[in-house]
Amino acid sequence: MTSVADRLARLALSKVFEPGEARVAQLVLGLGAERLLTALRDHEDVAGLLADASERLPQADDVHRDLERAARLGIRWVVPGDAEWPCSLDDLDMAETLDRTGGAPLGLWVRGPARLSEISAPVAIVGARSATTYGESAAAELAADVARAGSVVISGAAYGIDQAAHRGTLAARGQTIAVLACGADRIYPSAHRDLLAQLAQHGAIVAEVGLGRAPMRQRFLSRNRLIAALARGTVVVEAAARSGAINTAGWATRLGRPLMAVPGPLSSATSEGTHQLIRDGAATLVTRGEHVLEAVAPMGEHLTERVRGVERPRDRLTSREQRLLEAVPVARPAPVESVARTAGIGVVEVRQLLEVLAGRRMVEQLPAGWRLADGAGHE
Amino acid sequence: MTSVADRLARLALSKVFEPGEARVAQLVLGLGAERLLTALRDHEDVAGLLADASERLPQADDVHRDLERAARLGIRWVVPGDAEWPCSLDDLDMAETLDRTGGAPLGLWVRGPARLSEISAPVAIVGARSATTYGESAAAELAADVARAGSVVISGAAYGIDQAAHRGTLAARGQTIAVLACGADRIYPSAHRDLLAQLAQHGAIVAEVGLGRAPMRQRFLSRNRLIAALARGTVVVEAAARSGAINTAGWATRLGRPLMAVPGPLSSATSEGTHQLIRDGAATLVTRGEHVLEAVAPMGEHLTERVRGVERPRDRLTSREQRLLEAVPVARPAPVESVARTAGIGVVEVRQLLEVLAGRRMVEQLPAGWRLADGAGHE
Repeated sequence: MTSVADRLARLALSKVFEPGEARVAQLVLGLGAERLLTALRDHEDVAGLLADASERLPQADDVHRDLERAARLGIRWVVPGDAEWPCSLDDLDMAETLDRTGGAPLGLWVRGPARLSEISAPVAIVGARSATTYGESAAAELAADVARAGSVVISGAAYGIDQAAHRGTLAARGQTIAVLACGADRIYPSAHRDLLAQLAQHGAIVAEVGLGRAPMRQRFLSRNRLIAALARGTVVVEAAARSGAINTAGWATRLGRPLMAVPGPLSSATSEGTHQLIRDGAATLVTRGEHVLEAVAPMGEHLTERVRGVERPRDRLTSREQRLLEAVPVARPAPVESVARTAGIGVVEVRQLLEVLAGRRMVEQLPAGWRLADGAGHE
Repeated sequence: MTSVADRLARLALSKVFEPGEARVAQLVLGLGAERLLTALRDHEDVAGLLADASERLPQADDVHRDLERAARLGIRWVVPGDAEWPCSLDDLDMAETLDRTGGAPLGLWVRGPARLSEISAPVAIVGARSATTYGESAAAELAADVARAGSVVISGAAYGIDQAAHRGTLAARGQTIAVLACGADRIYPSAHRDLLAQLAQHGAIVAEVGLGRAPMRQRFLSRNRLIAALARGTVVVEAAARSGAINTAGWATRLGRPLMAVPGPLSSATSEGTHQLIRDGAATLVTRGEHVLEAVAPMGEHLTERVRGVERPRDRLTSREQRLLEAVPVARPAPVESVARTAGIGVVEVRQLLEVLAGRRMVEQLPAGWRLADGAGHE
């Protein structure tokens, strides 16, 4: 359990610093949020953070007002140690992610019924804002597939792939969570008012920055690390060569979580990024929900049955039997010797094989010799 | 150099045995073609081959007639040791391929001006007969790309992907070679009469089975090993889950040659095979000729330049500069203190950064404070 003082100190610090400040995450891990906040208020230049902090420290006093306003909007402040805190985020404090902008968030603003600690086998489905119809329908279908299997779909509520993933999940009556780069109370993009309302009603809206804060470039990048870290695995559906989705993909990789990518037509610029991820070996190619479930499931569960062609009767034959069958005429019967010569198989063996094939009703014997029966499954 | 007797013995044996009889290839490696042929003619049951051989041994007497007939058609018999013999086929005698149907061919019937020993960086492009328009155009474009770089394109002259690869190469005035499952004199499929004529005129038509022989299932499979073995690398453009192209892909893998596959729309059944090859790690995903050239080129040549997004002015900024730029208003100027608070950066540093950005004409100072200049590259 977290103390009230810690909850409030984390909230104050989250108002002072931009999300994804790795130094802040490290100091909070080491000192605790209260001590860091106190030190800064006492004008101690902890790790060179004072200059930045002092611009916004005055704003950090009225955290109770923030909590009251959030409560009125049905938004809660969740911090590490809370029952609802998703442990998956703690991986952001690993060295691999901390040496960049990164680190676990100080806390999260959450709106909606989904409890972050209880979301089942969450899968992030992300991609280009300027997606193609192909990409949007791929995202919606994958999302519906994994949602039907009980997975929660996480995305960023942006145009294109993100919204298709959310909508696909909702259509399949699954649960879906959006992580925003702005305050959890903001409608961004404004065209997604209805979508965000549905998410708040059936899933959850999550934000690291405070209420009312605007989306900014750096906030999108730090938001991406939360999408990757909340999910067990990340699927990139369409992405240009350098894009936000590729940034999210990078976080999944640094977190050691499965990264997947959907292929597309080779002429499509929005598939260049996904093709590159696959070429580089960074992402596994996925085309179906099963592939995604297989990647994020605990060992052994959800193993995809391999696609096989339709089995034809002749597929059960040995290669010698197949070779013989090729040498048997379709219409006009041929004597054993002729069949043997055509097949290049000894006449004794040919006699035996013809009997075997006749037993399977694949060849038939007439007075003039042998020919194919109807069931030969000849192509 | 090969002796005349060896050339004729190989031709005789090629009439007796079906292609891809690994036992025959091994015996020829060990005993030589002449001794094997003599032994069989003396009714010695070498390695249990006599029964099969005796059906066709009588046909093997008139090899001179075959050579005469071939010469009239402009078709030559090429055997190991000939200057034209492509050494790449000798890999078929490696243990990895010999333990199955396989082994190097006894010889090849060749029609057309291309000399097999001199073909440059050959690339096999193969795929489904029932290809989609997408697949055919992908095959034609890839073929044209690699042909323009000087590679020879090898395929099987079948419907669908094969013919598209040949035609794409011819359209780019490149050289292309077809390996047939029937005699080099046959027109199969008959709709490809013109295509085969062009191949014979500008490239080459290659067959392992004798003149006049019909295409049969097993011959398609043994033909596939020649396509894979003649090429430095194999590209599968479209393939159902189990298909001839997947068989060719298997040969490329057993030969240790680069295997590549083209992605496609995820709903396309003809891309299921290629997606599976990529998922399994058997094939590298390729979308452009450069990717293929990179895979088949000697180390270091043809390295593909990575696709990168268009660089914007702001991409050259540090993350602190970017963060500051986000905090500068677009229209109405703001004082330094306000910008600092929005950015969450100390006011002293903000002053320095604003000067830097002003020097790059990204922000401008007015009496009332700072705002973005036109060149700020704001999204």
